Amino acid sequence: MAAWGQRLAGVRGVLLDISGVLFDGAEGSGVPIAGSVEAVARLKRSRLKVRFCTNESQKSLGDLVRLLQQLGFDISEGEVTAPAPATCLILKERGLRPYLLIHDGIRSEFDQIDTSNPNCVVIADAGESFSYQNMNKAFQVLMELENPVLISLGKGRYYKETSGLMLDVGAYVKALEYACGIEAEVVGKPSPEYFKSALQEMGLEAHQAVMIGDDIVGDVGGAQQCGMRALQVRTGKFSPLVPGCIFFVVSPSSCGMWEAASAWFDEQCHVRAQDPNQRNTGPPAAERGNLTAQPRGQPCSSFLWSDF
Amino acid sequence: MAAWGQRLAGVRGVLLDISGVLFDGAEGSGVPIAGSVEAVARLKRSRLKVRFCTNESQKSLGDLVRLLQQLGFDISEGEVTAPAPATCLILKERGLRPYLLIHDGIRSEFDQIDTSNPNCVVIADAGESFSYQNMNKAFQVLMELENPVLISLGKGRYYKETSGLMLDVGAYVKALEYACGIEAEVVGKPSPEYFKSALQEMGLEAHQAVMIGDDIVGDVGGAQQCGMRALQVRTGKFSPLVPGCIFFVVSPSSCGMWEAASAWFDEQCHVRAQDPNQRNTGPPAAERGNLTAQPRGQPCSSFLWSDF
Repeated sequence: MAAWGQRLAGVRGVLLDISGVLFDGAEGSGVPIAGSVEAVARLKRSRLKVRFCTNESQKSLGDLVRLLQQLGFDISEGEVTAPAPATCLILKERGLRPYLLIHDGIRSEFDQIDTSNPNCVVIADAGESFSYQNMNKAFQVLMELENPVLISLGKGRYYKETSGLMLDVGAYVKALEYACGIEAEVVGKPSPEYFKSALQEMGLEAHQAVMIGDDIVGDVGGAQQCGMRALQVRTGKFSPLVPGCIFFVVSPSSCGMWEAASAWFDEQCHVRAQDPNQRNTGPPAAERGNLTAQPRGQPCSSFLWSDF
Repeated sequence: MAAWGQRLAGVRGVLLDISGVLFDGAEGSGVPIAGSVEAVARLKRSRLKVRFCTNESQKSLGDLVRLLQQLGFDISEGEVTAPAPATCLILKERGLRPYLLIHDGIRSEFDQIDTSNPNCVVIADAGESFSYQNMNKAFQVLMELENPVLISLGKGRYYKETSGLMLDVGAYVKALEYACGIEAEVVGKPSPEYFKSALQEMGLEAHQAVMIGDDIVGDVGGAQQCGMRALQVRTGKFSPLVPGCIFFVVSPSSCGMWEAASAWFDEQCHVRAQDPNQRNTGPPAAERGNLTAQPRGQPCSSFLWSDF
């Protein structure tokens, strides 16, 4: 097994997921994950370029950054790649007028968008706004269109709040796809356009960057499909029931970002390979399909370490 | 092209879908589809056995039958095959205690079921009860189970009420399947067990029966997979945008059941083949997949007519 020093050779930048990696959200607030504030500060003191890559779609970019700053993170709006601004660009370019199935917290991002007489649906993590009435309205808009367009801000299955796991937008996208017989266009992770845009902002090539996230499909799989390396932390939605067969987890403790960043600098991290003695039924069928389809590489050869 | 007299040879019984075939529902009420009351009466006067086959899961069986009787239909509870009683049997046989994601109108059907400390989820057409909170509770119950069991009363994509098309349970089943990485067990159409149970109640073999419905997958596809013949009416959720390439529609008018039954007796019906001049983009991708996977037979050979 190659040392971490070899596995991360040539890395010049780090893309950090936010929810479940930097903090666990709660109603209108959140709690930093232990050590993550210091980990971000430490990364920023290093030679690495840092960019924050989120599918957050319950809060506007401004609100999200303000919350993270209040929690102690060194972060500014210009350092964040988020799906709502990219979506607005797409809507304007294609002359699309959306029915917005979104959280009120992000509605201000669409202030400049014409929503009269909708000819598409934009769906994001609407939370409590995923009422039957709102879902049915989106469904009816799509069914009345000759060429139905459904744009989704991410396709996450679930995320973690302090109160527990929460259904994410991906579940509701699947509902509309099935009901209407269509396929959504995903803006945000894991779409290749999202990662390419983030890399462009950093001025890096894919092979020079590593993505750190808690989502095996959205973060790890999406980044790997773009030619990047990726790390999955053990915080957020990470579950020991989903084995580490094709990805890496740094440190067996429950502390995520901090341990990852510390480990890089201290060269003390290790790979958590699949433990045959662990109670582990493997990923469920649907996820197994995603895993084999999306992430690339082998567990012990896709990371090459350097001390930066 | 074979005459209808030949296409329906040997038919001894008719299975009738209810919503979209006999009536279009509305909030707590409904409107009979023109001619359907007379069509049912006429079928019952014939030598044919008649059974009503529904995935209705917003109303209890008693409430549904009372409503249909008020609308003028000759129908009794004993003539209806519905998914809720079958679900209760399954729950008792397997010692399952469900979290019920269902409409309040059908809750009384589960009065005898232990719902403490849930070890499965039962999902039905919950309508307005498909709130984010209720969906998330179902999701959390499933995620906490070692072997998650999701039982669905049908898997319809949508149905028609007088106010328009409405999202059906199938969309929400897909949402939970995706979020949890599982596959639901379907009780009700199009599951083979449902149709076999209805045929058993009628004392008929599959080749002796014809299913009449408005759903190409749930009614037509499910029945054909069981070896039955099937007719799709042009009422309810029927859409001219989904071509009649693998099924039959009786009469080009907008009147469903009545025209179908009349045609059988008058031998004046005709097949609506796919019209190359019709604006027709074909079924959407997801439905096309279902069509090729599920219904059997060729459009001009699967029905053989007799005058009963």
